[in-house]
Amino acid sequence: MSVASNLKPYLEQKAALIEAELLESLPGIWNIPDELRESMMYSLMAGGKRLRPILVLATVEALKGSTESALPVACAVEMIHTYSLIHDDLPAMDNDDYRRGKLTNHKVYGEAMAILAGDALLTHAFYSIVQSYRAYDVPAEQIVEIIEDLSKLSGAPGMVGGQAADMLGEQGITGLEQLEYIHLHKTSDLIVFSLKAGGHLAGATPKQLQALEKFGQHIGLAFQIQDDILDLVGDEQKLGKPVKSDEKQQKVTYPYFVGIEASQEKVAELTEQGKQAIMNAGFPYPDRLLELADYLTQRDH
Amino acid sequence: MSVASNLKPYLEQKAALIEAELLESLPGIWNIPDELRESMMYSLMAGGKRLRPILVLATVEALKGSTESALPVACAVEMIHTYSLIHDDLPAMDNDDYRRGKLTNHKVYGEAMAILAGDALLTHAFYSIVQSYRAYDVPAEQIVEIIEDLSKLSGAPGMVGGQAADMLGEQGITGLEQLEYIHLHKTSDLIVFSLKAGGHLAGATPKQLQALEKFGQHIGLAFQIQDDILDLVGDEQKLGKPVKSDEKQQKVTYPYFVGIEASQEKVAELTEQGKQAIMNAGFPYPDRLLELADYLTQRDH
Repeated sequence: MSVASNLKPYLEQKAALIEAELLESLPGIWNIPDELRESMMYSLMAGGKRLRPILVLATVEALKGSTESALPVACAVEMIHTYSLIHDDLPAMDNDDYRRGKLTNHKVYGEAMAILAGDALLTHAFYSIVQSYRAYDVPAEQIVEIIEDLSKLSGAPGMVGGQAADMLGEQGITGLEQLEYIHLHKTSDLIVFSLKAGGHLAGATPKQLQALEKFGQHIGLAFQIQDDILDLVGDEQKLGKPVKSDEKQQKVTYPYFVGIEASQEKVAELTEQGKQAIMNAGFPYPDRLLELADYLTQRDH
Repeated sequence: MSVASNLKPYLEQKAALIEAELLESLPGIWNIPDELRESMMYSLMAGGKRLRPILVLATVEALKGSTESALPVACAVEMIHTYSLIHDDLPAMDNDDYRRGKLTNHKVYGEAMAILAGDALLTHAFYSIVQSYRAYDVPAEQIVEIIEDLSKLSGAPGMVGGQAADMLGEQGITGLEQLEYIHLHKTSDLIVFSLKAGGHLAGATPKQLQALEKFGQHIGLAFQIQDDILDLVGDEQKLGKPVKSDEKQQKVTYPYFVGIEASQEKVAELTEQGKQAIMNAGFPYPDRLLELADYLTQRDH
């Protein structure tokens, strides 16, 4: 992996910052049934690289904005990501018993509670975004922009649409276009949201917002193709899940259509195009975003 | 039933207005998998009295506000209510095959799609609220207030918390206090949201918002106790579901603790207290809200 030498401590530091904020994100004074609170926090604090919230913060930094006031929005992305994993793992969906080496939510708390914990995390993401307004005086107009973006990019025309298409596609994906639709919405859209939210918070120009969208779509797709590749050739221990699980479920992946080599070329090409978009949009400090693009698309786990 | 003579046409007219808006609420140009769109619309358009959105509009009218600009918010409440029914009906939850005389969502579209349709409707509610800002220039600050209220009142400390407590309570509710917690959150909170959202949209004073909250909590609880009563003594055809279904599932209800007669007295008392709160808060046109309180708590189905 060609990770920039100082990226690893950066990722660790930001992940720690986000996890500290996530721990405080569900007000202790709220009267919530214990088991619901535990179920929500079990999955929210189950680890993971916190890549999406880090993208929010990195975008804010690329524009010299305030990281602190972006933290509630960064947490919101992680809540959306977490709820989608909880619901995805349910028996009626992917029926997974383990996630990141730990039992999935419904294996610990039961299906009904897992459904409710997912619903509650989804809903709480919007509460968290509003806290950037309450605690840090982010203007209401920016909050509304961010909320509109999230409702689209994580909803029916976004992530949920991608998941629905993925599920329906298990009955037979007929071509690359259909597969790209799934990847674009299931994976890229939440990455695009993370970047655009950072942009809104730090006063990005319309041109910069467009560049962030293109960057997100490209590295999101590259990230997912890389995931497909790793699922075929990766190392089981590094991934924390059985290799070839997609193949076993007879899922059609990118390499299925074009082979491993052309898939790897596609990843490189998408990454390069995404980075170009950022480089051409006049960000004061674009370097971290560019490093993250390489990190996301060259990872081996 | 002592329904004010002109309330019935009012309810029908408002329900028609809301249904017309709901039909248009999922933009046709959005690229959404057909089956996801159908599944969302199947439950959204499955009838029902549209009581919660009507409460939004009635509150706006009580304050001489603009009904038109409140419609997207009214639709949002119905989306939240609908998603909660879809998820509640799932096999892992209440396992219901019928709702309002029609097959439940998962019986038609399968469990996975029903989970996703619920997630998508929940998410889309927030998009819908933002449309009051986009289309009707409702100030961003009011939109943020409404979104914060919805995220709390329909989330972990609100409706979802009530559902979790209800589910956990199936293993044995020990007292009235626990039952009231469930009713307050599972039922009242979304009614409170509807009223407060109407208040925010029409410029309610803090005193009026407080009165709306008290009114909502009281008539919500009365509504739910009435539901418990009807479930014991109601007419199967009018209710559209088997009578005593709660008893069959050995659910503890209000009459279980205090008997039918004391439950009926409690309904009357709560309704009166709720109405008093409205009458004391200086609404220009409170009459419709007061009529709705009687309608909700005196219904026989």
